[in-house]
Amino acid sequence: MDNFNFHVTTDIRFGKDRLAELPEVMNQFGKNVLLVYGGGSIKKIGLYDKVMEQLTANGNRVFELAGVEPNPRVETVRKGVEICRKENIDVLLAVGGGSTIDCAKVVAAATLYEGDAWDMVLQRRKLNGPALPLVTILTLAATGSEMNSGAVISNLSTNQKLGVGSPSMLPKVSFLDPTNTFSVNKYQTAAGSADIFSHLIENYFKRTEGTDVQDSVSEGLMRSVIKNCPLALKYPEDYDARANLMWASTLALNGLTGNGKTGSWSCHPIEHELSAFYDITHGVGLAILTPRWMEYALNDETVAKFAQFAWNVWDVEEKVPMMAARIGIQKTYDYFKACDIPMTLPEVGINEEKFAIMAQQAVDHNAIKTAAYVPMDVKDVEGILEACLTESSFV
Amino acid sequence: MDNFNFHVTTDIRFGKDRLAELPEVMNQFGKNVLLVYGGGSIKKIGLYDKVMEQLTANGNRVFELAGVEPNPRVETVRKGVEICRKENIDVLLAVGGGSTIDCAKVVAAATLYEGDAWDMVLQRRKLNGPALPLVTILTLAATGSEMNSGAVISNLSTNQKLGVGSPSMLPKVSFLDPTNTFSVNKYQTAAGSADIFSHLIENYFKRTEGTDVQDSVSEGLMRSVIKNCPLALKYPEDYDARANLMWASTLALNGLTGNGKTGSWSCHPIEHELSAFYDITHGVGLAILTPRWMEYALNDETVAKFAQFAWNVWDVEEKVPMMAARIGIQKTYDYFKACDIPMTLPEVGINEEKFAIMAQQAVDHNAIKTAAYVPMDVKDVEGILEACLTESSFV
Repeated sequence: MDNFNFHVTTDIRFGKDRLAELPEVMNQFGKNVLLVYGGGSIKKIGLYDKVMEQLTANGNRVFELAGVEPNPRVETVRKGVEICRKENIDVLLAVGGGSTIDCAKVVAAATLYEGDAWDMVLQRRKLNGPALPLVTILTLAATGSEMNSGAVISNLSTNQKLGVGSPSMLPKVSFLDPTNTFSVNKYQTAAGSADIFSHLIENYFKRTEGTDVQDSVSEGLMRSVIKNCPLALKYPEDYDARANLMWASTLALNGLTGNGKTGSWSCHPIEHELSAFYDITHGVGLAILTPRWMEYALNDETVAKFAQFAWNVWDVEEKVPMMAARIGIQKTYDYFKACDIPMTLPEVGINEEKFAIMAQQAVDHNAIKTAAYVPMDVKDVEGILEACLTESSFV
Repeated sequence: MDNFNFHVTTDIRFGKDRLAELPEVMNQFGKNVLLVYGGGSIKKIGLYDKVMEQLTANGNRVFELAGVEPNPRVETVRKGVEICRKENIDVLLAVGGGSTIDCAKVVAAATLYEGDAWDMVLQRRKLNGPALPLVTILTLAATGSEMNSGAVISNLSTNQKLGVGSPSMLPKVSFLDPTNTFSVNKYQTAAGSADIFSHLIENYFKRTEGTDVQDSVSEGLMRSVIKNCPLALKYPEDYDARANLMWASTLALNGLTGNGKTGSWSCHPIEHELSAFYDITHGVGLAILTPRWMEYALNDETVAKFAQFAWNVWDVEEKVPMMAARIGIQKTYDYFKACDIPMTLPEVGINEEKFAIMAQQAVDHNAIKTAAYVPMDVKDVEGILEACLTESSFV
C-alpha cells in the first residue's frame, strides 16, 4: 500500500425530508447565493420550488446559473463567474447531478482566479488556490462529485474535456436525498450506475500491491451497484435501491477506493475523448469501453486480479483463473446490456472516422502510456475503440 | 436505509516516514502540548524520541501524561485535566492505541467542562460542548478511535466502563504509520483484530433493511481482517498486512459501516462489564463472546443475514441457510482460536461468580433489552456468559 492522505470534510446529510436544514447550512456562508442547475428537471420534480421556498423564507438574495450542460462547458463557467463577481456571491448552491456540481466547482474557483476560466483549467496546478464555498443537492447517483474535489469541464471549441481539482473545491455540505432520483429515467439511471461501476473498476485495477482494504471495499460497492441498479430500473421509486446507488456513487470516488494506490485510470481518458468529440453520455461511453478494455488488459501478469474480480464481484464458480477472468468480463458486458445500455459505438452515433485523433489525444492528455494498469499507446487505444464497433463475446 | 449524517473531518496521514509533518500539524493549534501515552512501549520502539525531537526542534512546550491504562481510568483523566488547566495546554498529542486516544479525548473535553470529569462521562449529553484539539499517532490497529468522536472510560471504584462521545472530540489529525505496529505482540495483534472484527459485526447485524452499501463494505473489511491478521501474526513486519489491519480498524468505526442503521450493539455492552469487573483485554472478551452471542441470535428471523455473513465473509459453500449460518459461526470461532486467542472465560480468569451482576449491569447501562438486533434480558446475557465457560461447537 502506498502512503496517502484522506481528508474529506464534506458534511453529508443523507436521507429524505431534510431540506428544512438548508437555511442553517446556507447561513454559515452568507446571504448572496448563486443557484446552479441544469436543464430544468429540478423544476419538473418540484425541487426548485422547495429550494426557493427555503431560501426566500431565509432572506437569501438568489441569482441563477441555469442550463448547465450534461458535459458542462467553459462558456457556462464564464457566465457563472460574471454573476459571482457582479453580485458579490457568498456561496454557490448546486442542485443537480455531477455536471451541475462540476460546473459550480469551477465557477467557485474561477471567480477567485484572476485570469480566464479555461486558463485555470489548462494550468491545473494554479487551482491550488481559494474557491467560494459550495453546497450541493444531488439529483443523480453517478459521478461522486458531491464528496470530492474534482471536476470535469469541456471546451467544445478545442475538443477538450479535462479534469481539474483542488481541495478548496470540495463541497462544504451535500444533501443526498434518494427521493430526488426517483424521476431519473432508465437510460440515465443505467448510465449513472455504469459511471459508478467504472470509478470502482478504475481504482481496482492498479499496479500497487497489498491494498486489500481498498479492493474489498470496491468489490462490496460493485456488488451493491450490481444488485440495486436493476431494482431501480424496475421500480424507480424503490427508496432503498435509490439510496444504495446514491451512497455507492459517493463512496466510489471520495478517496476510499483509490487512495493508497498509484497509477493512471484507463477507460476515463478514452471516454473523455468520445464525449469531447461526440458529446455522448459519459456513463454509456464507459460501459461500452470497459469490457473491451478489460479484454485488452487481461494477460498472464494481470489474470490473478481479473480472476479475483470475477470470483468476488460476480460469484463466478469457475476455478481456472484465465477462464474465470473471461467469464467475469462477459458478465460485466452482459450486465450493462441487460440494463439496456447500448453496447456498441455505432448505436450512439460513433464510427471509426475519428478513432485516430481521439486515440492520439487520449494518449497526449493523460499518462496512460506510462502509468495505466496496462500501458496503452495510440495503437492500443485504437484497437480498443475498434473492438467497440460490433457486439462482443469474451469467453 | 435510515437517514444519517456523515461528517468525519479528521485529516488522515497514512503511511511510513511522515513524522516530519508533525511540526506543521501542531503549529495549527499552538505551542503548549500535552503528550499522552501509555506504559512506555513508545519509548521501547523509539517513537517517543522521534516525536520529542520534532517537537523540541519546533519550539513546543511539552508536558506529559504517561501511564494511561489499557482500560483508561477516570483518575488518569483527572490528572490530565489538571495539567491542561495549569499549563495552558493548546493541543493534545496522543501517541498510542485506542485507550491512550480515548483518555486524551476525555481530557480534551473535561478540561473545558466546569464539573468533575466523571460527572461529564455520566451525563453524556453535556459532552456536546467544546474540547481542546487533539492530534494522534496510532500504534495499534484496533479501536478506530483515531477517526471517530467516541471514547470509553472506566471507573473501577464503581465497576463502570462507559462510552461517551461528542463531535468536538474527533481528532483533528491522525498519523497512521503501519511500522509503528511492527512491535505489537501476537496477543495484542490478535486482540486488536478481534476488536476490529467485532465493530464490523456489531454494525452488520442490525434490524434496518436495505443497507447493501454499509453491509458490503463491512463484509469487505471483515475479509481484509481475516486475511491480514494471520499474516501479521506470522510476519510481524509485513508492511502491507499491518497497513491493511490499520486502515481497516479506522474504517470499521468511522461511520461508514454503521451510519444509516439503527439499534444497539450486542457484544460490546456485555464485554464492557467483563472489563469493568475483571480488567481483561477488550478484544479478547469480544472474541470469546461473539460466537456465543451469534448462536443466541440465530433464529428463523435472522437466519438470512447470518447465512449472508457465512457466504460473503467466509465463502461457505453450503447452500441451506441455517446450516450455512452455523458453519459461519463455527468459522468465526475457529478463526479466533487459530489466532491463539483464549476462547473461554476461565482461560482469562473469569468464572460464574459475577455473571448475575454483570448481566444486570449490561442490561441497565445499555439498550440491549429493546434495541439490540435480538433483544436480550438479564437471563439471556447470563446464558451467553455461561456458554463461554467451556469450549463450544456450533455445527
